[in-house]
Amino acid sequence: MSDLLWQKPGVKVDARIQQFLAGEDVILDREFFLFDIEASRAHAEGLQQIGILDAEELAGLKRELEALAEDFRAGRFILDERFEDCHSAIESRLVERLGDAGKKIHTGRSRNDQILVATRLWLKDRLARVAATCRESAEVALARAEAEQGVPLPGYTHLQRAMVSSLGMWWAAWAEGFIDNAQRAVQTLHWVDANPLGSAAGYGVNLPLARDHTTTALGFGRMQVAATYAQISRGKFEMAAIEALSSALLDLRRLAWDLSLFTSAEFGFVALPSQYTTGSSIMPNKRNPDVIELMRASYSAAAAARTEIEQLLSLPSGYHRDLQFSKGAIFHAFGRGLGALELLPDLLRNLEWKTDRMREALDPSMYATDLAVDLARQGLPFREAYKQAADPARWEQGDPEASLAARVSPGAGAQLRLGELRSRLDALR
Amino acid sequence: MSDLLWQKPGVKVDARIQQFLAGEDVILDREFFLFDIEASRAHAEGLQQIGILDAEELAGLKRELEALAEDFRAGRFILDERFEDCHSAIESRLVERLGDAGKKIHTGRSRNDQILVATRLWLKDRLARVAATCRESAEVALARAEAEQGVPLPGYTHLQRAMVSSLGMWWAAWAEGFIDNAQRAVQTLHWVDANPLGSAAGYGVNLPLARDHTTTALGFGRMQVAATYAQISRGKFEMAAIEALSSALLDLRRLAWDLSLFTSAEFGFVALPSQYTTGSSIMPNKRNPDVIELMRASYSAAAAARTEIEQLLSLPSGYHRDLQFSKGAIFHAFGRGLGALELLPDLLRNLEWKTDRMREALDPSMYATDLAVDLARQGLPFREAYKQAADPARWEQGDPEASLAARVSPGAGAQLRLGELRSRLDALR
Amino acid sequence: MSDLLWQKPGVKVDARIQQFLAGEDVILDREFFLFDIEASRAHAEGLQQIGILDAEELAGLKRELEALAEDFRAGRFILDERFEDCHSAIESRLVERLGDAGKKIHTGRSRNDQILVATRLWLKDRLARVAATCRESAEVALARAEAEQGVPLPGYTHLQRAMVSSLGMWWAAWAEGFIDNAQRAVQTLHWVDANPLGSAAGYGVNLPLARDHTTTALGFGRMQVAATYAQISRGKFEMAAIEALSSALLDLRRLAWDLSLFTSAEFGFVALPSQYTTGSSIMPNKRNPDVIELMRASYSAAAAARTEIEQLLSLPSGYHRDLQFSKGAIFHAFGRGLGALELLPDLLRNLEWKTDRMREALDPSMYATDLAVDLARQGLPFREAYKQAADPARWEQGDPEASLAARVSPGAGAQLRLGELRSRLDALR
Amino acid sequence: MSDLLWQKPGVKVDARIQQFLAGEDVILDREFFLFDIEASRAHAEGLQQIGILDAEELAGLKRELEALAEDFRAGRFILDERFEDCHSAIESRLVERLGDAGKKIHTGRSRNDQILVATRLWLKDRLARVAATCRESAEVALARAEAEQGVPLPGYTHLQRAMVSSLGMWWAAWAEGFIDNAQRAVQTLHWVDANPLGSAAGYGVNLPLARDHTTTALGFGRMQVAATYAQISRGKFEMAAIEALSSALLDLRRLAWDLSLFTSAEFGFVALPSQYTTGSSIMPNKRNPDVIELMRASYSAAAAARTEIEQLLSLPSGYHRDLQFSKGAIFHAFGRGLGALELLPDLLRNLEWKTDRMREALDPSMYATDLAVDLARQGLPFREAYKQAADPARWEQGDPEASLAARVSPGAGAQLRLGELRSRLDALR
Repeated sequence: MSDLLWQKPGVKVDARIQQFLAGEDVILDREFFLFDIEASRAHAEGLQQIGILDAEELAGLKRELEALAEDFRAGRFILDERFEDCHSAIESRLVERLGDAGKKIHTGRSRNDQILVATRLWLKDRLARVAATCRESAEVALARAEAEQGVPLPGYTHLQRAMVSSLGMWWAAWAEGFIDNAQRAVQTLHWVDANPLGSAAGYGVNLPLARDHTTTALGFGRMQVAATYAQISRGKFEMAAIEALSSALLDLRRLAWDLSLFTSAEFGFVALPSQYTTGSSIMPNKRNPDVIELMRASYSAAAAARTEIEQLLSLPSGYHRDLQFSKGAIFHAFGRGLGALELLPDLLRNLEWKTDRMREALDPSMYATDLAVDLARQGLPFREAYKQAADPARWEQGDPEASLAARVSPGAGAQLRLGELRSRLDALR
Repeated sequence: MSDLLWQKPGVKVDARIQQFLAGEDVILDREFFLFDIEASRAHAEGLQQIGILDAEELAGLKRELEALAEDFRAGRFILDERFEDCHSAIESRLVERLGDAGKKIHTGRSRNDQILVATRLWLKDRLARVAATCRESAEVALARAEAEQGVPLPGYTHLQRAMVSSLGMWWAAWAEGFIDNAQRAVQTLHWVDANPLGSAAGYGVNLPLARDHTTTALGFGRMQVAATYAQISRGKFEMAAIEALSSALLDLRRLAWDLSLFTSAEFGFVALPSQYTTGSSIMPNKRNPDVIELMRASYSAAAAARTEIEQLLSLPSGYHRDLQFSKGAIFHAFGRGLGALELLPDLLRNLEWKTDRMREALDPSMYATDLAVDLARQGLPFREAYKQAADPARWEQGDPEASLAARVSPGAGAQLRLGELRSRLDALR
Repeated sequence: MSDLLWQKPGVKVDARIQQFLAGEDVILDREFFLFDIEASRAHAEGLQQIGILDAEELAGLKRELEALAEDFRAGRFILDERFEDCHSAIESRLVERLGDAGKKIHTGRSRNDQILVATRLWLKDRLARVAATCRESAEVALARAEAEQGVPLPGYTHLQRAMVSSLGMWWAAWAEGFIDNAQRAVQTLHWVDANPLGSAAGYGVNLPLARDHTTTALGFGRMQVAATYAQISRGKFEMAAIEALSSALLDLRRLAWDLSLFTSAEFGFVALPSQYTTGSSIMPNKRNPDVIELMRASYSAAAAARTEIEQLLSLPSGYHRDLQFSKGAIFHAFGRGLGALELLPDLLRNLEWKTDRMREALDPSMYATDLAVDLARQGLPFREAYKQAADPARWEQGDPEASLAARVSPGAGAQLRLGELRSRLDALR
Repeated sequence: MSDLLWQKPGVKVDARIQQFLAGEDVILDREFFLFDIEASRAHAEGLQQIGILDAEELAGLKRELEALAEDFRAGRFILDERFEDCHSAIESRLVERLGDAGKKIHTGRSRNDQILVATRLWLKDRLARVAATCRESAEVALARAEAEQGVPLPGYTHLQRAMVSSLGMWWAAWAEGFIDNAQRAVQTLHWVDANPLGSAAGYGVNLPLARDHTTTALGFGRMQVAATYAQISRGKFEMAAIEALSSALLDLRRLAWDLSLFTSAEFGFVALPSQYTTGSSIMPNKRNPDVIELMRASYSAAAAARTEIEQLLSLPSGYHRDLQFSKGAIFHAFGRGLGALELLPDLLRNLEWKTDRMREALDPSMYATDLAVDLARQGLPFREAYKQAADPARWEQGDPEASLAARVSPGAGAQLRLGELRSRLDALR
């Protein structure tokens, strides 16, 4: 590893301890590299505005930061174990290329606020992706709800056959769910959209840092004002972001469960295109819906990451090294979570229904509720109607299309009100 | 227990199993009782609009619902093990008093959507309380930040002395934190503010239920449109509400940690009024800050409740009895969480600082960062300045007020920008 | 509330704060009441051995403790909000009835070690119940594995039909699982079987307390030696106990999942006796397997309780009031967890298989693995055999009994080795 | 990636989906590589015993497995994205080098039981390391308890000064804690010490697999008998292992908290050797105890991993692809957890106490409990003695050594009973 910026003469170093301290930090920092460059540029501009850098120094820093970003994107600069983390790697390069200008860039900032601002920018980027992919899934679900609204599907409660449902109702459910998920991602994005850069080590500095400038330059919605709060928000904001992600993954988990059942031979309602399945190493007959199962399982990564951070936050205010472990957690959550969510729109587009099997599963008992309500509409008190309709002798095979056509309560088969969902979805753009 | 509404002839009943099924459900339902009455009234109005009830029946139902609410509030009606749950208790009473009109009220609704709507109204009420108490804490913190802004306080990172901080910075941190927490509670309240009533068992009914009416009458911001989504949102919305509560409790945990340290003899920065302390059964000398510790610990109830619900939600769509267990969880989280949060404003008002002890803890090393930045401002590249200022020979006891006065970066001691925080707080009203 | 033992003159009391401090503590303490009496008796005997109490005082204390236990069991003594907790209720009664002897019983002990020892005794009791009920479930499963070993059942992986399985294999799996769970409960019971009484507030006392006596008298396996460790083990031992419980609940969750699928109309492999089902408030046709679902859901209570304690334990050594919240958590976990586990043996006894439906679900593809292995046994390299057997043209309807008879790998259909499981189970008694 | 073993003609492949399915699996598998080789050797021996392989084929397989292990250890064989996972990498190499013998090795086994057995061997290895390092920490703590037993240390409850404690009591607490932790790791190791190899896909095979042989050859304590249970135990055993690890990390977290406080300037009881500290990027004065903080934080990785697996296990019996995600979780937990635990013995050896600061923190109130008990010993009922000793006028500066010398309750300062702890520790070897 290159020299540690903060290292002092006479201090013992123990390789095993250094290894423990470093962990896989610098590898993880690849995620942050470009965001730190972006924040460093804004910080340098601010330093020039308050007279710490002159115009030439700033120009040099901006040029070298851009060149380094290019090198990184092109794979010419590899962030690896030679460095302590992305922050010192970038600073080292600036010092190497620019001398004193490089040695000035850290004026008035601390690694703590560098990490905070890089994390914040990264989270905003990922929440925007969560929102976008949720909108796209909602879009597909809405379109299919419209196209397939009259197709009967058995409706279950407790996994027991309950009433006639429809593809319209099934798709509309996921449409509304993913609209909610998108809205939550957007809300959360706004909530975390506060610039911590300039809080230094949590106590500010004796320089009139141009925080208004960096807030604007980095595209933040507001400044995170209190220097001391910037550190308190570490982990707290990460958790909020993971929770917004988790909301979508919770629905994905239930959706994947439906598909896991529906693709079983016993239900047999759905056929998966073959690219969504894999085989077995020992059983020659298998085509397994592994993609569905890993989508379902992806919630666990977000849950794990949230737990990991939550466990760190029983601390007094101020920075503590414990907080470093929050970094890997967000990469794990969003890496796996977005990986799963971003496969969803195509999966939804590609689902094939086996409408015959769906129709076969509609048995006479599933019309009993219709009957009870019909009796109630004719004036029989519902509690009496319920008792009459509970008699299996009165159940008979019904017409699923007719059942759906009569289902006129708002949000039910004949009254899906997809337009209202469409309006909410459009408002999220 | 009174007869089970859904019970059929010839079905065996096992007392031990009934006990397991019932759990403590009916006791828990005391929280929901008045909300179910409110929702029942709106549902009855809707039934009258679509011709299921006539005007007289509706009037009777409204009168009896109001009377029952009064009886409940006055302790004349006790919800206990005689009933299966609050929903059947209320319906039974209506049948008993009104006969057929009572037997009609369940037309077009299911216990599932009754629970959903009662839960939703309850969550909205509790989120409003979270928002209100967070605003109040922020208010106190802002006022004290203003009043005590120049008072020096040691600033720590890693629990090691770092730089001179101030009461202004400390209070401002909590002010901004609780503004964020209030905002999140408000956002979440809006997010869950959707009416599930009328979704029946998740598949709607063959009646044109007046869902637009119930949405308005119950004060909801929107209808939860898709009948099938209403069930999918069960647990998901509860988790979001707990997460908003947890955000505030996370900050409370860190604040309580600060106070736990500050009230130790070793730090000695804070004196707690005696009503916040208790004694020991064996050690005659003790006055312990138990209130602080239980505030810190209250996060765990919200964490537990969230886990409890999260564990239930690995399910296909549709209702499953598993979801019943989400009910106790929210009562536990908000019961304990609000209990702690609502003590905070007074605690913040009552804290007494021991400014002498705070000043004594400011040692010469804590001015080294000021020195380094001063050197940098004079033109020395920061990396060089840092090295010079790292020499203990150069550290000397400084003037904390002067250090604070020079801390002009936005959000630091001399530049707290409390007005910006005040504006955000005011906008939340 | 009666006077607080530790209350001092001149200390302010605030009703709202007292309410927050007390919580539902005294109600929860009903679980501990008899265990505290048992520990108090042992402690009193110890005090007599070291000369703090004389023989008459001891006799009085034992008599009154026994009388109080009787009153409590008979419902003549109600532990309620008049008291701060069970410990002060018991001490008050002794003082009231015995005067000075009552005032002496607290010599050399602290409420902290009272709570520790009551918790320890309670946990041992509950772990013994977990072990017993797991053994009983394993017993039923073993017996049914033996009785039904040749009955074919479809075997699934990924919820896709895989190979012919058997009721023997299904039952044997749960038998071995619950043997493991019983063993773990026993191991954990031994691990926590250490007497904390006599550690006082965590630093011992200046009295030669008869800890060897109390260890023996209370039936502990060993003394928890280090006074300071007694406090550190608070929460840690509770978590271990919940984890042992959770191990059984994890298996119960998977077993309940099997039954949830098997009782669906689509699988249709299992019929549940009617006492395990409930109806719907709106759908007259429903019989829902609610008991199965609540069994499945019971894991969540244990998970929640574990989280609740885990969140409290980020603390320095020594007692902190935070730890009080660990108490409700164990009651919640074991209350619901044992409630579910103790219904399992009967449920297992009562399951009825629908063997026709099971046989119908065995399709030709499920013999492909048998075929591949047959080819391999005849000398074809398995990778080639696999390819040949992957050709659907080669699949044909097989004889499930023959398939099972040939399944001779140890632990498979024809070679269940139930005797080995029986031996392990017997060794746990 | 090389060809997929299970791939069939005509199946579509989508690169993005393949990427999602593969994840980082093959990189993670580096941890399992040598264990899979070991298990493959035992499996091959078994196949020869039942006539699937001849002696020559077995010899070839053993030779090539050994060579591959050598190549892997020496870095000549790199497991990377060319392969689907370690299992197919190993099989491919055997086929490439040996032809038909290689194609035979998979006879009678499935990837599922390969993963199970590799995981089991890996967990056993890691649990043994947990036990060993806990024993070592207990050893150091015992030695220091003995050496420093009379040195006074302030004892705290609620972070408030309580009574005189001693280094003997402090060290003895951690000694007993880590003895418990070692014992639990050993218990857990025995609990999971069951051979799953030979369960195939969970339903066995039509071959008399030599499972008794593989059980012995791989050093397992018993066979995991029921083929179907092997899959049910997936995740369950991993959780148990993580819980055993977590028990040690819980104590480490509390120990690190003590040290975090003790190294603060305000407490000032402990000096850390400089290799355990780091500096700040902005504050030239800082030496921060980062190692302590990351040790404290390491619990969170185990908590996260446990959550990750727990979330996956709400499934019916049988294998599901969800379970794949349990793999990364155990690597994360043990990687970070053992990393922290294995630094502990040296840290404990290297701690330097600042005995002057410790003595200064002993104030007169800390002798009040001694006084109360003294009065009680002289015959005053303890409740009266407590009241008298609560009067600050009666507190006076005591002699800490005398206080400790009188602390004769077993497990307290003058009666540490280290011999009993030593015996338990020795019994664990």
